[in-house]
Amino acid sequence: MIHRLTVVGLGLLGGSVAKGVRREGLAREIVAVGRRYESLEPALADGTVDRITTDIADGVAGADLCVLATPVATLTALMPAVWRAAADDAVITDVGSTKAGIVGTAEALGRDRPLAFVGSHPMAGSERAGYGVARVDLFRGATVVMTPTDRTPAAAVKRVSQLWEALGGRVTMLDPASHDRAVAAISHLPHLVADALVDAVVRLDPGFLELAARGFKDTTRIAASDARMWREIFQENRPALGEAIAAFRQALDHLDRLVTEGDGPRVEAELNRIRLIREKLA
Amino acid sequence: MIHRLTVVGLGLLGGSVAKGVRREGLAREIVAVGRRYESLEPALADGTVDRITTDIADGVAGADLCVLATPVATLTALMPAVWRAAADDAVITDVGSTKAGIVGTAEALGRDRPLAFVGSHPMAGSERAGYGVARVDLFRGATVVMTPTDRTPAAAVKRVSQLWEALGGRVTMLDPASHDRAVAAISHLPHLVADALVDAVVRLDPGFLELAARGFKDTTRIAASDARMWREIFQENRPALGEAIAAFRQALDHLDRLVTEGDGPRVEAELNRIRLIREKLA
Repeated sequence: MIHRLTVVGLGLLGGSVAKGVRREGLAREIVAVGRRYESLEPALADGTVDRITTDIADGVAGADLCVLATPVATLTALMPAVWRAAADDAVITDVGSTKAGIVGTAEALGRDRPLAFVGSHPMAGSERAGYGVARVDLFRGATVVMTPTDRTPAAAVKRVSQLWEALGGRVTMLDPASHDRAVAAISHLPHLVADALVDAVVRLDPGFLELAARGFKDTTRIAASDARMWREIFQENRPALGEAIAAFRQALDHLDRLVTEGDGPRVEAELNRIRLIREKLA
Repeated sequence: MIHRLTVVGLGLLGGSVAKGVRREGLAREIVAVGRRYESLEPALADGTVDRITTDIADGVAGADLCVLATPVATLTALMPAVWRAAADDAVITDVGSTKAGIVGTAEALGRDRPLAFVGSHPMAGSERAGYGVARVDLFRGATVVMTPTDRTPAAAVKRVSQLWEALGGRVTMLDPASHDRAVAAISHLPHLVADALVDAVVRLDPGFLELAARGFKDTTRIAASDARMWREIFQENRPALGEAIAAFRQALDHLDRLVTEGDGPRVEAELNRIRLIREKLA
């Protein structure tokens, strides 16, 4: 049982944590911290949270579990304030899409004041953002990557995995660097590629978009995502994204070469190899 | 009213034409032509077609409307047999994903024997193939591109557009070369890119696929498509696909450069520009 849960940042992810915790009755009290009262008030009005504040020290003090759910770029900037205000026995996690920077910041802060922090990345999202699209069941069936290091207290890992599992998530563990390489490949690269696909059609002839059918729409759906959030993610995870882009260019060049050479049987063999891999994902 | 409709090739598209025509009562008789009886028998058994044959001359003779719905590579090869067997007043169309080659072949055949041919490309598909996934409503709401040239008889355009409209399609006209450039951009390029995305992850670490969430799955769904069909489409539309790949590489290089240079505001501006374009597609 959580005595007091504080959620910092009440967007899609933070809002869904608060809604899920409330519905499952996992916390006695839920406090939400945000930059503006207007964006917090709907959660107070609908009973998702008990108290709202724009003062991070006030919001974090006295919480036994803190979930940091602001955009990635804001997160590392506000962590020092969280470390100053948190109770000694507080357990802290975040929901950021990249982990090496956040975990590194937490461990640097931990040298002055050791707190039980562990990084989390719930792999649940939407091309839409904000509390308005937060859902009580957002994490049901979602993979949640947690990124403990050898300095992470076992108690933090246990408490935070219990939270995600109680919200229906399937927890898996990765070190922060491996996490960032993995999400660069299966999340950030597809985003950049979807953006480039839309832009490629515009460069060729915007009128072609009138013929876009389900295939194009599915492939580029994530290009409709929040630009500010993705700018920050790309920036934060630039080294791993660079590696993923390089692998993608190799893969594209390889297929392009086979098609250009007219090597039909090899094209088909490659497409079949890829199809079998993709089909396994269901 | 169609007296006798002959569908050559009873896969997803041909099967859906037959099912739709039957349900709407648009034809007195429906004949299906295929290479093997076993693949035609289900359509006879379920009442979608009245007669099946593996003999193309037998199937096409006496039809007043022929829909050629085999894979693209087979299509041009069987067109001479269709031109020999068809009735003088037959109207012929196809459902191929590329049009310049097919229309060119039809017009070459038409120099010896003028027949009322017009190319069609119903923009409705699936990553699954075969009569088993054919649907009575596959074309409902789908864009159907027709590609008449100045040699196409007006009667063929009228008859074939009536067919697609009766099946719920929204008909639009393009010349064959423009059609091929457009579908290279909004269909064939996304397919190749989806294939390259899956392959890029495999090149980095196949284990990363375990973290694939909805974004990756949507973006790569079409990589599960039939390899034989897509080998043929890529090959058939290679020049236009090459142009689309070049535009895509430019778009990707451009975004990659902005991210690498750390130009946050320009990255955000570009992502926003792309987001607004993508959002319009709904």
